[in-house]
Amino acid sequence: MSDPARHDSIRAVHWRENHLRLLDQRLLPMQEIFIDCRNADDVARAIKDLAVRGAPAIGIAAAWGVVLAAQALRANSVAIDATGLEPVLVQLNATRPTAVNLAWALRRMRAALVNSSDPLSALTGEAAAIQNEDLAANRHMGELGASLLPQHCGVLTHCNTGSLATAGFGTALGVIRAGVAAGKITQVYAGETRPWQQGARLTMWELVRDGIPAKLIADSAASHLMKTGAVQWVIVGADRIAANGDTANKIGTYQLAIAARYHGIKFMVVAPSSTVDMDTTDGDAIDIELRDSTELLHTAGQRSVVEGGEAWNPVFDVTPAALIDAIVTERGIIHGPNNQSMRAMFADKNSADLETSVAVAKGRA
Amino acid sequence: MSDPARHDSIRAVHWRENHLRLLDQRLLPMQEIFIDCRNADDVARAIKDLAVRGAPAIGIAAAWGVVLAAQALRANSVAIDATGLEPVLVQLNATRPTAVNLAWALRRMRAALVNSSDPLSALTGEAAAIQNEDLAANRHMGELGASLLPQHCGVLTHCNTGSLATAGFGTALGVIRAGVAAGKITQVYAGETRPWQQGARLTMWELVRDGIPAKLIADSAASHLMKTGAVQWVIVGADRIAANGDTANKIGTYQLAIAARYHGIKFMVVAPSSTVDMDTTDGDAIDIELRDSTELLHTAGQRSVVEGGEAWNPVFDVTPAALIDAIVTERGIIHGPNNQSMRAMFADKNSADLETSVAVAKGRA
Repeated sequence: MSDPARHDSIRAVHWRENHLRLLDQRLLPMQEIFIDCRNADDVARAIKDLAVRGAPAIGIAAAWGVVLAAQALRANSVAIDATGLEPVLVQLNATRPTAVNLAWALRRMRAALVNSSDPLSALTGEAAAIQNEDLAANRHMGELGASLLPQHCGVLTHCNTGSLATAGFGTALGVIRAGVAAGKITQVYAGETRPWQQGARLTMWELVRDGIPAKLIADSAASHLMKTGAVQWVIVGADRIAANGDTANKIGTYQLAIAARYHGIKFMVVAPSSTVDMDTTDGDAIDIELRDSTELLHTAGQRSVVEGGEAWNPVFDVTPAALIDAIVTERGIIHGPNNQSMRAMFADKNSADLETSVAVAKGRA
Repeated sequence: MSDPARHDSIRAVHWRENHLRLLDQRLLPMQEIFIDCRNADDVARAIKDLAVRGAPAIGIAAAWGVVLAAQALRANSVAIDATGLEPVLVQLNATRPTAVNLAWALRRMRAALVNSSDPLSALTGEAAAIQNEDLAANRHMGELGASLLPQHCGVLTHCNTGSLATAGFGTALGVIRAGVAAGKITQVYAGETRPWQQGARLTMWELVRDGIPAKLIADSAASHLMKTGAVQWVIVGADRIAANGDTANKIGTYQLAIAARYHGIKFMVVAPSSTVDMDTTDGDAIDIELRDSTELLHTAGQRSVVEGGEAWNPVFDVTPAALIDAIVTERGIIHGPNNQSMRAMFADKNSADLETSVAVAKGRA
């Protein structure tokens, strides 16, 4: 039996009765400084400025931002209702408009207001539920994913999908935590994850802090590592999973999947079911965001590439379902994802969710 | 017809009668500063401290270092012979003991002394020949490699194999220069090449300086780039080519070859025949150097990974011959390299060369 409490000491989002305490991820790993958000503006700024990152963590922080706004209304003796909170819902929703979990969490907070006799308690309870459910889902996914691992294995992960990105425990990193606790994983390798270095800065920090044997590699060393036989599973998160199982995730994930298949190494995607988008037919329908080339042309704030040099900087890529051995959500494991197996588990995740999302988005106009 | 003089403005190694002028590659791309080496000590330091890098460029610099030592003997009215130059040959050979071209160039300089009536002229002529032959070989490889390219193609390269690494023009980058001059290549992509960033710092500098359309990518974005259809050939250099065509090159090369094959994209290795080692049976016999993890754990001189965090930092990897479509040397093109096709072109490159190398190495004892 595995013990999920082991190797699990980190929480980045803390509710403190009248303020939200966030671990500032921009300063990690060299400084561990918490930011106290005392109103919704503070929370919006923390999300926008990337002090808190990771889709689930952003949604949780935003939910607490709504609670802080409700507390302010109460302090000013203003009624706590949808009308009064609308500006804050719109403001928070706009901080990272593409994050699916953000809109989803705000929809839940808005719904909690309906027919509530004690709105402040309802909102506080809903924010706590969002946070607690995320942690529980991660622990459950951890158990499910770890059940797929052999004894004495090495695993490779990419980006940061850990306690920092969620309510705690993590998605892909949660499977790794559970696998280590179960004594199955003997060595974790983390890819740097250029250009933002989430693997080097954040994942390595989590793993070292939680006493998990970890080694950093250059992203380009992954195939050579696989060839040595040191890795049996690649375990990654997801930003969006299409109806056929094609998975958008941090740039470099696709390359790991190709290399894993070439070496006969297994490939696991771990993400909450809120990441599944059954309205997206396949990976070709997913727009890949191109970000500013500055991230590649500068190092530590200084230009490091010749003036006039350009860069191509896609943030995500799409891994085709055919290269994925297992998709793990809190609902269960899909082996060899395809249209049929995805529909069997996620038939309910249709455009109804999106319509609610559009309603929230329209509130911005 | 292609014009090799176009897109070819850069030279990093300049002989100036009584000193050697080297472009300091440590300061590129932000500073273009030349170092004047006035004696063999200066040259040895420039090699050891990486002011000059790239196996052919190192060999050329070392050859001129021998000439500077001979000039010093002449200035002191000391006879110029193998005995007098032995300490310098040993010193230069020890600067980067694993670089094949370095020992090869010093063997040529030593041989030039034999039966020479005018040793200083002989040495000067030999150093110039080594440099000129390298440039000529690169231009010839450029034509050969470019002949394989289709019209209007995009190419991806890795590390720096250009004028900075050679007497000029470059190996893989020479093929790219020739392909651009011939109007075949419309876009070049350069991988950053973590952890040293040779692609970001050096290759981008060369390409921009020579007016070649270039875009930098994160190493992990290569597969996504291939999927977009933007690239038809991957063109890389080599540090060592085994008897069966297996090729050791900068870490990340293997991953590019796997991804290229997955996407049906062609993969070309470009290197002088001095890189071919017929005494190495295959890639499994090539030791892969592991370097200090500091290169991954620090950014811009500052620790950027949590204290206690470790890294695995192999510098090279091996691309199996089966993933290589063409090996281009100055002797010609090998399509689909294997034991037979390699032996047909390089049967003469046997252990005799190595024995001479050992003799030079023994001089250190």
